[in-house]
Amino acid sequence: MGRFHVDYYVRAVDEAEARARALDIALEQTVEIPRNVVPSGYVEDEILGRLEALVADTQGRPGFIATISYSDDDVGDDFLQFLNIVFGNSSIKPGLKVEDIGLSPAMLSLCPGPRHGIEGLRARAGIGRKPLLMSAIKPVGLPVSELARRAHDFALGGMHYVKDDHGLVDQHTSPFAERLAACVNAVGEANAKSGGKASFVPNITASASEMIERALMAEEAGAGAVMIAPALTGYDAARSLAAHPDFSLPIVSHPAFSGANVVSPECGFSHRVYFGLLQRLMGVDAVVYPNFGGRFGFTRDECRSIANACAADLGGPKTIVPAPGGGMTFARIPEMREAYGADVMYLVGGALLQEDDLVSACRRLVEAVNG
Amino acid sequence: MGRFHVDYYVRAVDEAEARARALDIALEQTVEIPRNVVPSGYVEDEILGRLEALVADTQGRPGFIATISYSDDDVGDDFLQFLNIVFGNSSIKPGLKVEDIGLSPAMLSLCPGPRHGIEGLRARAGIGRKPLLMSAIKPVGLPVSELARRAHDFALGGMHYVKDDHGLVDQHTSPFAERLAACVNAVGEANAKSGGKASFVPNITASASEMIERALMAEEAGAGAVMIAPALTGYDAARSLAAHPDFSLPIVSHPAFSGANVVSPECGFSHRVYFGLLQRLMGVDAVVYPNFGGRFGFTRDECRSIANACAADLGGPKTIVPAPGGGMTFARIPEMREAYGADVMYLVGGALLQEDDLVSACRRLVEAVNG
Repeated sequence: MGRFHVDYYVRAVDEAEARARALDIALEQTVEIPRNVVPSGYVEDEILGRLEALVADTQGRPGFIATISYSDDDVGDDFLQFLNIVFGNSSIKPGLKVEDIGLSPAMLSLCPGPRHGIEGLRARAGIGRKPLLMSAIKPVGLPVSELARRAHDFALGGMHYVKDDHGLVDQHTSPFAERLAACVNAVGEANAKSGGKASFVPNITASASEMIERALMAEEAGAGAVMIAPALTGYDAARSLAAHPDFSLPIVSHPAFSGANVVSPECGFSHRVYFGLLQRLMGVDAVVYPNFGGRFGFTRDECRSIANACAADLGGPKTIVPAPGGGMTFARIPEMREAYGADVMYLVGGALLQEDDLVSACRRLVEAVNG
Repeated sequence: MGRFHVDYYVRAVDEAEARARALDIALEQTVEIPRNVVPSGYVEDEILGRLEALVADTQGRPGFIATISYSDDDVGDDFLQFLNIVFGNSSIKPGLKVEDIGLSPAMLSLCPGPRHGIEGLRARAGIGRKPLLMSAIKPVGLPVSELARRAHDFALGGMHYVKDDHGLVDQHTSPFAERLAACVNAVGEANAKSGGKASFVPNITASASEMIERALMAEEAGAGAVMIAPALTGYDAARSLAAHPDFSLPIVSHPAFSGANVVSPECGFSHRVYFGLLQRLMGVDAVVYPNFGGRFGFTRDECRSIANACAADLGGPKTIVPAPGGGMTFARIPEMREAYGADVMYLVGGALLQEDDLVSACRRLVEAVNG
C-alpha cells in the first residue's frame, strides 16, 4: 500500500532526543502501545509509522523536523481518521507541530477537494483574473431590514460576495430564514441596478443536521455560497456539504474557534497546512484568515505561505482563494496587492462601515484594488 | 435578558494594556466592528460584551484576568454560537486564554448535559461508589478475531468498559460492523463466565451522518456506550447524540486532535474548562484526557482541576467521570488513588498488554485500584 508523509517540528535539545520523540510520534499516531508489544508482520511492517528523515529545524527553533510516513491502509477511507493519524494524540504533546503533509495518491482520491475553487468563484462573480471582494453584514443585534440594507449597499458598491458576520446565526433579532430571504432579495435589487453579479453568503454554522438544512435553504433561496466555521462544525462538515447530491454552492471557511491550532509557534499546525492544505482537502473554496498587520498576530510570511498553499499544484484538488481579513483599511491596499497579487479575496468590513456613504466607500475600494 | 461570563487570561505589560485588550475582546466576540460605529440602543446596551472586572493574574503569568459578560440573546439558543462568543475570533489572538465560564440560567437550559453521568456509568457496570475501569482494544491492523479476543480478556479480567482504540474506524482489517458484533459478543461471553456487567464501547468518530448511523448500530447491537473525538466531529456532535430520540447510550469523549486547545499556557482553554465544563455542556458522560506523570505534559494540579470541574455542582447538568489515561502503570495506582479518590475511571491499556496473561493482569489491576 501507499504511504503519506507528515513533517513535524519536534522540540529537542539534541538529535538523540529528537529521534526518540519522533519514534514516539510514529508509535502514538498508529498503534498506541509500547514498542515491545507491537505485533510483528502486518501491524509492524505496514501500520506502524516510519521515521523517514530527521533534520535540524531551519526556522531557528530549538529542535528538528521529523518526517514520518503512514500507511494509507490505516486511514480506512475516513477523512477524520486521516486527521487523527496526522495529529490526534500527538497534538497534546508540548513542542510538536505539524509543518507539512505529503499526500499519497490514495489520500488525493479520498479528498476530491472543492467543487468550484477560485475560478468558480470568479466565474460566479463575472470577473476574470482579478481580485475578488467580500464584505460582511453586521453587527449581530440589528434587525433584518438594516442588515439587508447593508447587504444591498455592499453589493451596489461592487463587492462580489456579501456574507453574514460569523456571529449571525438564528438570533431572534434576525432569524436565519428571514435574513436569508431579505438579503438575497436586497443583493438581487442591487444587481438589477448595477448590472453586477454579487452573491449573498449566509453563515450556516450549526449542528450537522441544521447545517445541511440551512445549506439547502440557502441554495433554494438563491444564495451564491455558504459559510461555515470548521473548527466548530467539525472537519468533515465542508466535505459532507461539498459531496451532498442536492447542494452545489461554493463554501467559505471561517477561522472562528481555530486559533489555538495556529497561534503558538510550538504546537498545532503551520499556517500553510491549517489554512491552506487542510482547507482544500476539506473541500472549501475560499478560506478566511487574519491578515498580517491587522489586529491579529499573523506575519506577512505566514500569510504568504497560506496563499501559496491555496494555489499550489496538489495533483488534483482545485486551487482555492485566500481571503485575508481583519482590520483591513484603505491605506493597506498597496501592501496587500504587493503580497497577494490577483489571486486573493479581499475581505473588508469595519473599514467600510466607518465611512459615511457605504456605497461610495465600496466603489473606492474596488478602484483601489484594481487601479 | 440574562448574561453569562467568561474569564480570560490577557497577557499585558500593565493594566492599561490589559484593559485595552479586554475591551477589544468584548468588541471582537460580539459586534466585530470598530467601537465608534457600534449602533446605539439594543446593540450597544445588550449585545456588546461588557468588561465586568479586571484583576492581576494569580498564576504568575505576565498579565491580567478579564471578566467579560455576554448577552444570552447573542447565543440564539445555538451551542456553537455560545462557543463562538466565548472564544471564536479571539482564539486567534496571541496571549489570550479562556480560564473560566460562569453560566447563566439560559445557558444551563440550552445545555441539559449528559443523560447518564458518572452514576449512570456505575449503574450500568453494576458497582457502587468505586472507581470505574476502562481499557482499549488495539492496535489498528489486527484482525477482528484478535481484537475481539482482547475485548473478551479485558472483560473477563474485570474491566467495566472495553473501548475501541480511537484509531479504529472502518479499516479493511476490522470493519466497523464486524468488529462491533464480534466485540459485543466476546464481552458478553466473558460476562457469562464472570457474572460481570462489562460493556463494549465502539469508536463512532466519523462524518455526522455516519456517526449517527454507527451510534444506532451500536445501541442495536448491544454496546454499552459509544466514543467520539469532539475536536474532530465538531462540538455539537455529542449534543446531537445525547438528544437523539432513538439513542440512549452513554458517550465517552476522546481528546484526539484537541491538544492545541490546552497545551499552551497562553492560548486556548484552561484544562478545567476544556476537559471539564465544556464536556459536560456537550453532554458527554466520561472524558478521556492525558494523566499527569505519563507521556503527556499535564500536571497533577491540571488533572485535579479537570476532575473537580467534572464533579462541580453546575445547578443542572449531571456530574461526569474523568478518565485519565496515557502511560498508566501498576506502580502509579497509589498516587492516582490519592489524586482522584473514587470518582474516576482508570483508563489502562498498554500496561496490561505488556503482561503475559491479560486476564490476570486485569484482575491485579482491579485489586490494586480497590484494595
